[in-house]
Order: sequence, then C-alpha cells, then structure tokens
Amino acid sequence: MTTRQSVSIADLTRKIEAIFIKGGLSETQAGAVARVIAAGERDACASHGIYRIEGCLRTVKAGKVAPRAEPTIKTDDTAIVRVDANDGFSCPAVELGLPALAERARKFGLAAMVINNCTHFSALWYEAELLTDMGLAGLAMCPSYATVAPTGGTKPLLGTNPLAFGWPRPGQPPYVFDFATSVAARGEIELHRRAGKPLPQDWALDAEGNPTTEPEAALAGAMLPFGGHKGSAISTMIELLAAAMIGDMTSREALDHLGTTTLAPHHGELILAFDPETFARGGSGNPFDRAEAIFSAILDQGARLPSQRRYQARDKALAHGIPLKDADIAMLDTLLANGLDAISL
Amino acid sequence: MTTRQSVSIADLTRKIEAIFIKGGLSETQAGAVARVIAAGERDACASHGIYRIEGCLRTVKAGKVAPRAEPTIKTDDTAIVRVDANDGFSCPAVELGLPALAERARKFGLAAMVINNCTHFSALWYEAELLTDMGLAGLAMCPSYATVAPTGGTKPLLGTNPLAFGWPRPGQPPYVFDFATSVAARGEIELHRRAGKPLPQDWALDAEGNPTTEPEAALAGAMLPFGGHKGSAISTMIELLAAAMIGDMTSREALDHLGTTTLAPHHGELILAFDPETFARGGSGNPFDRAEAIFSAILDQGARLPSQRRYQARDKALAHGIPLKDADIAMLDTLLANGLDAISL
Repeated sequence: MTTRQSVSIADLTRKIEAIFIKGGLSETQAGAVARVIAAGERDACASHGIYRIEGCLRTVKAGKVAPRAEPTIKTDDTAIVRVDANDGFSCPAVELGLPALAERARKFGLAAMVINNCTHFSALWYEAELLTDMGLAGLAMCPSYATVAPTGGTKPLLGTNPLAFGWPRPGQPPYVFDFATSVAARGEIELHRRAGKPLPQDWALDAEGNPTTEPEAALAGAMLPFGGHKGSAISTMIELLAAAMIGDMTSREALDHLGTTTLAPHHGELILAFDPETFARGGSGNPFDRAEAIFSAILDQGARLPSQRRYQARDKALAHGIPLKDADIAMLDTLLANGLDAISL
Repeated sequence: MTTRQSVSIADLTRKIEAIFIKGGLSETQAGAVARVIAAGERDACASHGIYRIEGCLRTVKAGKVAPRAEPTIKTDDTAIVRVDANDGFSCPAVELGLPALAERARKFGLAAMVINNCTHFSALWYEAELLTDMGLAGLAMCPSYATVAPTGGTKPLLGTNPLAFGWPRPGQPPYVFDFATSVAARGEIELHRRAGKPLPQDWALDAEGNPTTEPEAALAGAMLPFGGHKGSAISTMIELLAAAMIGDMTSREALDHLGTTTLAPHHGELILAFDPETFARGGSGNPFDRAEAIFSAILDQGARLPSQRRYQARDKALAHGIPLKDADIAMLDTLLANGLDAISL
C-alpha cells in the first residue's frame, strides 16, 4: 500500500535546495530552481514537480548548464530589461530581472524582460504569478525543442512553445493560463505509447510527414500545433519574438545545440508586463473590477477559469502540507545523500 | 455572363471615399475607412472589401457612429499612446496614433496604442501592416460582439475577438496573421445555413448550450472558440487587455449597447508595437535575418506562410488593377448617387 507523509511547502523547498547544493549548484541557482519545483509540487502540477529534479541534475552532470552561474542584468532608458543567465538556469535570471521589469511596467505602462543564454527550466505560470503578485498583468513565452511541424508541413521545426498569461485578482488567486502551443505535450504521446493506445486524430505526423495515430511513429515524426493554422501561427510568433527578436536560439537551433530532448533546453525567453493601473490612468473605470465582471460571467455559466485545479491543490497544501509518497521521499533522500552520483546520463 | 472591369487601386479608393463623403462622413473619416476597404478588395479579402461599405453606411444611418468625428490623441511620458476616436470609426484613430506609437516603440523598445470610443471597422492585418511598413513588429487585438461561449460554458459571452500579428520582412511582404479566436467566423455559419449544410462538430452550441451541427440552432446559440480551452483562454485575454484594461466595452457590453450584430460594433482596441532593432541592440545578431531562416524552414517543407493568398491577389491587383463585377460597379454607382438614401435599416 502506498503511504504518504505531509511535508510543509517550506520544508520541501529547503530539501530541494539542499539537493541542488549537493549536486553542485550555487545558492543562487539552487534556491531559485527549488522555489519553482516546490511550487509545482504544491499545485499538484506534476510536469514541474519533484520528478523534474533529476532532469535538472542530469543537465548539470552532462555539463550543459553552468550550475554556479550568476545572472547579470542590464537596463537602460528603454522599457526593456535584459538579463543574461550566463548559461545558468532561467529561474534566477527571472528573479533578478523582476523588480526592474515591474518598475518599468509601472513607469511606462508596459515593459519587457529578455532572458538570454539560459537553460530553460520553469513553469511559465509561475512567472506569470510573480507578476500578478505585484498587481501586473503578464505574458510569457519561449521556444523549446523542435518537435512540432508547422500546419501544412511535414517536419519538426517549432517547439511546444508555451504561452502563459496572468491577470491579478485582488484578494484571490490570479487568472492564469499556461499551455503548450502544440496540440499535446510530448509526455502525453509517451503515455499513449506505454498504454498501447492509439493517439487521437490530428495529434501527430510520422517521419514521412503523414498523419499517424501510432505513438511510436509520432515520436519519430512530429507533433502538430493546437488549433490548426491558428495555433501554428501563434507558435511561429513565439519563435519570432522570443528567439529571433531577442537574439537567442530558435527551437530548431536549441535541438541542434544539445542533440537530445532529454536535457533541459538552452534558449531565451520573453516576458511582457502590463500595468493595468497605468493603462487605466486615462480615467475609464477600475480595470480590476471590470475584469471581475468577465470572470463572474464565465463562472456563472458553468465554465471554469484556467488554473482552478492548481489553486485547489494549493489550498490543500497550504492547509495540510504536500502529501508525498514514501517512494518520493526515498527518491529525495537518495538525491540528497548522493548528489550527482545518483544520476545516470 | 458576368463581365468584369479592372479598376486601379487609387481609383477605387477615391470612389469609396466619395461614396462615404456623399453618405455624410467627413474627409478624415471617409479617407481612412476607404483606404481599409480598398486594401481589402485589392487583397481579395472579401470580409473587408467593398461589400462592407453598405454596413458602414447603415451604422451611420442608424446614428450609431459619429460620421464627422475628429479623433484626438493624448501622449505622456509613458509608452502608451491614447487615441479617443470620439465615437467615429476606428480607422482614422489608428492613422492618427501611428506616428506616436512608432516613435515610442523605437524609443522604449515596445509601446502600446489604446483606441477608445470607436466604431470598430478594420481588418487587423491592415493595421499590422502599417507597423511592419515602418520596420516594427505588431500585435493587435480587440473584442467584438458576444457570440462565442467560453469552453465549458453554454452562452455567448466572448466575441470572435480577432488577433493579428505582423513581422517585417525587408524587400518582401511581411509575415502577417490575422484570425478570429472563434473556431469559425459568423459568416461561415450563415453560409452553411444558406447551403443547407450541417456544421462540422465543435463549431457551435444551440440556445440550450448543447452541441449542435444545425446552422439555425447555432445562430440562435453560441459559437465555440478555436482550439478548445486554449483558444478560449486567448479570447478571454483579449477581453481583459483590450476591454477591461483599456477601460472600454467588453464583447458582452458591446452587444448590449447596440442590441444587434448587424451594425459595426462600438468598443476599443489595443495595438502593441515592438522594435526588433531596439531589442537587438543587446548585440546578438540581426533579428530580420534570423527570422528569414525561420520562414525559409517553413516554406522549404511545403507549408505556407499566412497571408500568402492575400499577397498573390495584391500582386495581380498592382499589375492589372482590381477586377470588379458589373454588379459591383453598379452597386458603387448607386451608393455614390444616392448616399444614405440607398441604405435600408
């Protein structure tokens, strides 16, 4: 029987941080990555929870991330905040740039944070919430690995290119969405493969560029964007704004650079911040009240807001701690005791 | 047999402008709206071509747009350019704000134009191209009329909320996409109704909120967003940024305000401009060259770039004029001779 122990969010964060320090990360890197992973586990968001610790350490062991990098920030008189991750993880770069991004968004109404030269590891919803916590709206996007064919094409070129948006809701968790612009995550295709189940139509192409419902063939071929040509266009926009425009790697270049999708990818990220209060200074009503009317109208007809499931898990974790399986705790203890020696490449 | 006459783009623009002046529009309003409609006809983009003249005049005759309004602009030390359309059409407001938007995008790296109190008539691709013509990337969005249910909901709340993006391509037409965030345009449902054809699955709900493939039932019910919950989230983001944040009407409020979808809607618009050269000042390669590599990779695998069909029509129109049917020319002549008297409400 699986038994579980409850761990407080603070204790879990400290434990993950200690694991990363044991694995050779500096305090700056370890703390920032640990905060993202603990938040993922807190929100029952498995894709960014503790199972990702091993992948981060594998990227360290493979020598593909600088585990003690100190990100550096450059600002000027524009609304652009530039943070060079200096080949470290993206998380400390985001934390470093955030105050300057917020200050500029308040001053100019909108501002951008460009992150370059990072090993990207983060849930974009986490970053959107860093902005909403400060009363700002935010839009975050980045390329990933070329595993998605443009609509009408035959070969992987685009990444799963996530897009996240956050809007602050005073007194309650923010409106936040965060999704891959591919029709499914690569992990979902892998799950179908393991279960021996065919994929839904329109998920993937085989290596010859023909539609397939066969998971093996899809993994050797390409995924498709969500929503047909519209999702394909949005994914392309992300390559343009968050790779070409910011002078960092496209999804194609990121895959060519590492040659595998099993390590965290190296590329950049673009985060836009909007200050609703500066926009509203024109004088036409409280933007937050107006937004609540939209949310009420959505909920009143029985539809959900995105992230509601995460917030329910979060409420439980705040009240009762995070329930970890014994096997998970054993995994954490092994990593803490053995650091990179516990990692096989 | 249908015969056609070729009309130059300049002659068609002048004729449309004259029709609008006859219909009571000021030169400012007539010229700006005529330029959008002539561009639509030039690009064989029927949704914004000459057939829309009558709808604009109907909105004038119904007293729902100020045909002689002069838009006014407010700038300050932020990156936000605010244009009040003063209840006129959106087109002259966009033209008025554009130089200040471009100037701020160059200075700050990114900037926003907020348009308030307009009767919205424009193809957003047209506006995206105004930015790409100046070497800027742009993202334009606005609400519309509440005809779309959020995913998981049952009732119209969101608009068809278009989203357009443009990226400049030196020496050739820009990368531009422009689409409704609904799965289909309302006009497409109407076309199915006339043809007596059932709708595809997942296009619409009936008035009770149940899925329907029956066009009549769909028109009495709600359309659905493109791409499931992802498209629904993007459409909601547009309500938040381009209505709540800018202090203008949501799609629900726009429909309540006019009580019909047969007139051009009254609401606001948000246009974001990015200067790739300012972003690239950090020093990591030419963003335009890097973007071309992405476009080549898309085209090389047999996929299309959005807007290619428009650009082909445009090339033909530039070389040989715009082919108008005799019936179209007769329609234009009637409107020119009779102004608002030719319009039935």
